[in-house]
Amino acid sequence: MTFSLIKTLRGCSQLRLPVAIKASSAVISNCRVLHKSYSVTQIELPKKMATSKALPLPQIFKYVDQNAATYKQLLKEAVAIPSVSCDVKYRNDCVRMVHWMQEKLREVGASSELRDVGCQTIDGQEVKLPPVLVGTLGNDSAKNTICIYGHLDVQPALKSDGWDSDPFELVEKNGKLYGRGSTDDKGPVLGWLHAINAYKGIGEELPVNLKFVFECMEESGSEGLDALLIEKLKPEGFFNDVDYVCISDNYWLGTTKPCITYGLRGISYYFLEVECAQMDLHSGVYGGTVHEAMSDLIYLMDQLVDKDGKILITDIYKSVAPLTENEKKLYTTIDFDTEGYRQQIGAHKLAHNGNKEQILMHRWRYPSLSLHGIEGAAFQPGAKTVIPGKVIGKFSIRIVPDQQPEEVEKLVFDYVHKKWAERGSPNKMRITAQSGRAWTENPDHPHYQAAARATKLIYQTDPDMSREGGSIPVTITLQEASGRNVLLLPMGAGDDMAHSQNEKINVRNYIEGIKLFAAYMFEVGKLPK
Amino acid sequence: MTFSLIKTLRGCSQLRLPVAIKASSAVISNCRVLHKSYSVTQIELPKKMATSKALPLPQIFKYVDQNAATYKQLLKEAVAIPSVSCDVKYRNDCVRMVHWMQEKLREVGASSELRDVGCQTIDGQEVKLPPVLVGTLGNDSAKNTICIYGHLDVQPALKSDGWDSDPFELVEKNGKLYGRGSTDDKGPVLGWLHAINAYKGIGEELPVNLKFVFECMEESGSEGLDALLIEKLKPEGFFNDVDYVCISDNYWLGTTKPCITYGLRGISYYFLEVECAQMDLHSGVYGGTVHEAMSDLIYLMDQLVDKDGKILITDIYKSVAPLTENEKKLYTTIDFDTEGYRQQIGAHKLAHNGNKEQILMHRWRYPSLSLHGIEGAAFQPGAKTVIPGKVIGKFSIRIVPDQQPEEVEKLVFDYVHKKWAERGSPNKMRITAQSGRAWTENPDHPHYQAAARATKLIYQTDPDMSREGGSIPVTITLQEASGRNVLLLPMGAGDDMAHSQNEKINVRNYIEGIKLFAAYMFEVGKLPK
Repeated sequence: MTFSLIKTLRGCSQLRLPVAIKASSAVISNCRVLHKSYSVTQIELPKKMATSKALPLPQIFKYVDQNAATYKQLLKEAVAIPSVSCDVKYRNDCVRMVHWMQEKLREVGASSELRDVGCQTIDGQEVKLPPVLVGTLGNDSAKNTICIYGHLDVQPALKSDGWDSDPFELVEKNGKLYGRGSTDDKGPVLGWLHAINAYKGIGEELPVNLKFVFECMEESGSEGLDALLIEKLKPEGFFNDVDYVCISDNYWLGTTKPCITYGLRGISYYFLEVECAQMDLHSGVYGGTVHEAMSDLIYLMDQLVDKDGKILITDIYKSVAPLTENEKKLYTTIDFDTEGYRQQIGAHKLAHNGNKEQILMHRWRYPSLSLHGIEGAAFQPGAKTVIPGKVIGKFSIRIVPDQQPEEVEKLVFDYVHKKWAERGSPNKMRITAQSGRAWTENPDHPHYQAAARATKLIYQTDPDMSREGGSIPVTITLQEASGRNVLLLPMGAGDDMAHSQNEKINVRNYIEGIKLFAAYMFEVGKLPK
Repeated sequence: MTFSLIKTLRGCSQLRLPVAIKASSAVISNCRVLHKSYSVTQIELPKKMATSKALPLPQIFKYVDQNAATYKQLLKEAVAIPSVSCDVKYRNDCVRMVHWMQEKLREVGASSELRDVGCQTIDGQEVKLPPVLVGTLGNDSAKNTICIYGHLDVQPALKSDGWDSDPFELVEKNGKLYGRGSTDDKGPVLGWLHAINAYKGIGEELPVNLKFVFECMEESGSEGLDALLIEKLKPEGFFNDVDYVCISDNYWLGTTKPCITYGLRGISYYFLEVECAQMDLHSGVYGGTVHEAMSDLIYLMDQLVDKDGKILITDIYKSVAPLTENEKKLYTTIDFDTEGYRQQIGAHKLAHNGNKEQILMHRWRYPSLSLHGIEGAAFQPGAKTVIPGKVIGKFSIRIVPDQQPEEVEKLVFDYVHKKWAERGSPNKMRITAQSGRAWTENPDHPHYQAAARATKLIYQTDPDMSREGGSIPVTITLQEASGRNVLLLPMGAGDDMAHSQNEKINVRNYIEGIKLFAAYMFEVGKLPK
């Protein structure tokens, strides 16, 4: 039988009716059937269940296991909305995704609002940004309050990029759920929802109050979010009662051992534009008579990084935090299989001769520069004979402590302008950037210890305290806006291939991740207020 | 009233009924209404019109003017079929386009057949090539026979590339017909059809026999065509009675003065592939730990050409035909407005300091190298943070007499492999090519003189005898297969923007071009058999 459990529980939650799970037939409550994807049954239980503080978790875990199919179905629904934030043609899907999530928050009893964050400028035109979903669940001053951040947008994906199945149709295969956003970040966002639902499902109060910030522009620089957090939500007092901030938008280091993350690289993303003509030209008719924008752009892009990944921009390494002896030792103890990492991506040879410590350090604590592609040039299969009139080279630098974005941007701009002057081309060149800082937190904080206990409970092992090569610029903003300890609690595994073809989340990580979030809330609930 | 003139005339042609045009009502023949786009009326005329050899042309010109709307409508139909040959997803449209054209040939009374040219290999898969349309109209041994070549496929085009209107919907604006293929090459191909139709429309016999070769893979290396021409059509005797070959697939040098073209550059197109991983990678997670394919590719592409367009490949200029004093003089007399040319494309500054002779020589008689783009990298708007796993750089060299494709390919391969060895990257690199030779013909041949007379009759000026920077590799194959003089008779103007956004053909060029083709057939008809 098929019921809307979320809706059901939202409707019932004010009555504090304990609800238990039964696999087969049972006494059905009179709650309305609203959501066909949730397939559980409810039975009447004594009005107040006498549970110790420690008791709810096993029940919750059982509940989560019993509702796994429903959780997958909801992820399927979320993945089916192609909320690609970097391409304006999917903007309506982004908005739809936010609305979808707002409805889900409503169903678990959270109050929420859509906050307008203005417009972005694309090709000189103002385009409305998707609203940010801001929510609250619980207001018990005796409880700790966690602010949860997640994002609802995804990277672009086309089947023709080399996906084995439609990227926007969640497909389960060999214990893995394939689909764009499955791990980055729709799976984790739904994980929170399901964890709340599980508490409610067993008729247990949430051990914490929750605040939510779910945006839909993370993959495109979180445009508009910083201003909302700092200039609006903070002055409005949204963070006043927040005690901890938790983000689940990253991955384990490998595929078996969980981790908790206390550091992220920042990102400084560049748009390097060269124009030689007002339109594309036929290379037969015009070839040999114009200074081609592509050769200028390729020249500039070739000045940025060498084959070993060393960044060639003058002074770029100058402000990188020096490596201490203590820190150096830290890398030697981390369990990381470089050969497995290499094989997993099918690389012929890793950088730094595959040295484990060097690989980890260059992933976490040194900057890296990647050339992403070119907008405006031929990208299709086949032999297009075009001289592109205007091309935009894309590259980014993952920045690290203590590199400041403004400083990095200045170094890049100066360097590119110097190289451009050396080139002596008559074409027009322009470089712009968008950046977010690197972030580190204190991993000895009780908040981290609580998360570590929760992780151990689920995975029976102490998590690694790790840093990440990726960037979630909002982490710092949330740290600043709340003034509280921020923690990254990954759900997915290190081979989830976020941003790549065949992005997936393991069924295990998804389902155990829901339990992890429930346990984490429980552990944070126990921290002194 | 709306009739199928083409169909009508085909049906009537065996009766040799002279048909005259009347703008308004008239005695309607009993021919079936088959094609709504042709809107003319027919009147009964004396069975044999006594016309001198010179007489039909003014009548034809009048007929063409009166049917201009119909000719535009047919071009609209042809443009609406997105027969993009380089992208296999449009392959059915290519086949549809060939069928459409076969029907049109049938309507003017030509017999034709679709010749299978096998498959092409794309990503390891065999994909069927569109058939080649081979036709014959007339078999009078007293008449000269012209073999006409044209192509029905087009370059890719998306509105989002920067078109002002849908590229596959022909739009008339300010005396111009905008649409992909309008000038390259659907307009000219239809021009032949309309010219035949005009002869028939006034009830006049064609002054020549015609043979047709219309393919749908020209923009993608004319795959399969050479083998068909040399290994099948030639041995079958298709070219036995061909006296002249005519191709209309190029453009005037400028916008006002017509030309006839006796030389083309060839093309040697390269696919330069570098692979660093079996899938795309997240630049945050993997940046700094892999040797990125993009930086290798960008490095290689930067070794190919300098900012002034000088090709850096060792010995590439060695076999270019030396510039004689006589040839040098030729360039000084040609009417060419470099400043207009610059303004038209909105270039900041032309190469070779805008020197007219240098511009023309680098367009016609010197090779040029263009970097077209990269397949597999980020090409979308926005800030995609991908490390592409495999990228394919596209570049081509327009080759000239006396450069042989095999020789050029070897020079490029050797140079790229040398540079790759210098790079010392552990990644996989592969380079492949497809090439077609340059072509020149004798412009003093009577065939050229006949075309010059026809051109002067239409445009009241002697055409320039020009060469072209573009490439139509089949020109040489047709020259070899037929053993006859080959001539390029452009219909469009120099600012038609073939291969670019907002491709167009001027209404004037289209309509006068139909007359030009009719006059050309007439003039060739007068040449001694």
